[in-house]
Amino acid sequence: MDREWIGLHAHLLSTASAVGKKEAEGPLGSLFDLCDENDRFGTKTWEAAESEMQRMAFNTALGKACLHDCDIGALFAGDLLNQCVGSAYGLLDFDIPYFGLYGACSTCSEGLLLASTFVSNGVFRRCGAVTSSHYCSAERQYGTPIEYGAQRAPTAQWTVTGAGAFIVERADENTHGAVIVRGMPGKVRERGVNDANNMGAAMAPAAEDTLVRFFRATDTSPDDYSLIVTGDLGFEGGTILCDLMRADGFPISDRYADCGQLIYNRRSQDIHGGGSGCGCSAVVLSAYLLPRIVRGELPRILFLSTGAMMSPDSIKQGNSIPAVAHLLEIEHR
Amino acid sequence: MDREWIGLHAHLLSTASAVGKKEAEGPLGSLFDLCDENDRFGTKTWEAAESEMQRMAFNTALGKACLHDCDIGALFAGDLLNQCVGSAYGLLDFDIPYFGLYGACSTCSEGLLLASTFVSNGVFRRCGAVTSSHYCSAERQYGTPIEYGAQRAPTAQWTVTGAGAFIVERADENTHGAVIVRGMPGKVRERGVNDANNMGAAMAPAAEDTLVRFFRATDTSPDDYSLIVTGDLGFEGGTILCDLMRADGFPISDRYADCGQLIYNRRSQDIHGGGSGCGCSAVVLSAYLLPRIVRGELPRILFLSTGAMMSPDSIKQGNSIPAVAHLLEIEHR
Repeated sequence: MDREWIGLHAHLLSTASAVGKKEAEGPLGSLFDLCDENDRFGTKTWEAAESEMQRMAFNTALGKACLHDCDIGALFAGDLLNQCVGSAYGLLDFDIPYFGLYGACSTCSEGLLLASTFVSNGVFRRCGAVTSSHYCSAERQYGTPIEYGAQRAPTAQWTVTGAGAFIVERADENTHGAVIVRGMPGKVRERGVNDANNMGAAMAPAAEDTLVRFFRATDTSPDDYSLIVTGDLGFEGGTILCDLMRADGFPISDRYADCGQLIYNRRSQDIHGGGSGCGCSAVVLSAYLLPRIVRGELPRILFLSTGAMMSPDSIKQGNSIPAVAHLLEIEHR
Repeated sequence: MDREWIGLHAHLLSTASAVGKKEAEGPLGSLFDLCDENDRFGTKTWEAAESEMQRMAFNTALGKACLHDCDIGALFAGDLLNQCVGSAYGLLDFDIPYFGLYGACSTCSEGLLLASTFVSNGVFRRCGAVTSSHYCSAERQYGTPIEYGAQRAPTAQWTVTGAGAFIVERADENTHGAVIVRGMPGKVRERGVNDANNMGAAMAPAAEDTLVRFFRATDTSPDDYSLIVTGDLGFEGGTILCDLMRADGFPISDRYADCGQLIYNRRSQDIHGGGSGCGCSAVVLSAYLLPRIVRGELPRILFLSTGAMMSPDSIKQGNSIPAVAHLLEIEHR
């Protein structure tokens, strides 16, 4: 049997985030690179707006590092839209080989894990990972078009309008900044939750599974990390995960955070169960967590984007919600 | 700038295919491992049938190699269904880390390229790649439900009902069989084709782009390969690709084949533009091409699954069809 975790040395060379109005009004609002006040990013459809966010985020990440298309060996990208058109159209302008991903809201850590594996093994010198979600395109596809004004369940989460882009290169002894040092791909887990208005509950067991496997395989414990961050379990799922981890003998609640809990102000922003969507963990990692790691405020964290892998059709056909969580260990160097 | 191609040494250790009735009646019918006469594979919905095909195909590939879940480091899988539920549900039974992909019909070579990169670099000892498509689930999602009896355009392709599964491990000097020795990820190309009934035309420029880049980067020519096979350009797209390649100075028509042209009998099976779908190139590679490589009949081939990355919504919104083609060089050893 293989070792379950992947040893990596991938320097997070550059990152950028683009968000919508609600995200800019949240507690992390001032940290994002780009924001559009009407969430349209100069386009005529919500889907095109999502693509444009990806284009702008990746372009900004390239610019920050003074890099060009030819400096990037491959892009790993995906989103929530059917056939992942947010990424396919959004990154069309770049003359860079493209690996399309579908990991639902786990795409941020899935893409970074693959990109890091590529650069750590010298397959390419640098790789990019990009993902996005948009509240209005997601509501149209997964819920009801926003014009209907449907009432939301208390556990329902709010899809983040945002795109995050990352560029990684192989770290060496001179690297300073944030470095991905280990990764562990998640297994798809399904524990019988079939309520699409409670995705946090469906995804918490997947995060639990990856975390417990990681602690056991690496002989580490929650105490070894300054923060353990999930992608978008939200308030409901985050509480469930902490309960599950305590029962497993790995209590994490004193060092636990969730990007879906961090991105909005729960009291004033009416977001019910918290933020969600591929963009949620991507923009929080990009704008909030990575700068704190680079500054040394967070010496070593575990970051797990979490994805619910159902479709509207699979739910209507009576299936439960499978979920997956990919883990990255990121350290200050 | 990085080298554009990826050096690989990935032995195709085991493979299996599962198909529907029409595919079993085609010219390659006797070669597939599993077939269900009513395309339902014992399930109640077309979507569940597609998942079950994936499960059966991968399970058969595991069985042929006498392997168990714990012998596989990671699975790379995807399909055409919204949110790739064919793979997420189909592979849920396996206790194996899961990377979800979306490459449309390029998924077969995308998954194999990633799996081969992982094993060639020793990230995991063995990896799996699985993909599928189903005529009825695809028609329901992309076209019109089959019960409507809509008339098909002459260039429209027929989505293959089939799933292909592959297991790769690192090749060494004692390896005999089919070995993936190089790979090149495709770039997303869009040349203004917006007719969803003519996907071959939309995808041909992507295949051209990858092939020309590959020949130039590796200093090879079509003469170095016994066969150059695309995934599902079909009759229309295949002709276009041959024309484009001749104009580029790399004529391939004397050694060109397309899985979408091979899988059905054009005269008797009423399939218009040829076969398509993620399953098309996967089952033809699994059941027809790989055995010929293993037997030495095809010493060295280039295999490019081709994917059209649009969605029904993006077409309705007036966008053209972006496409991608990932390349694998596979040799007899």
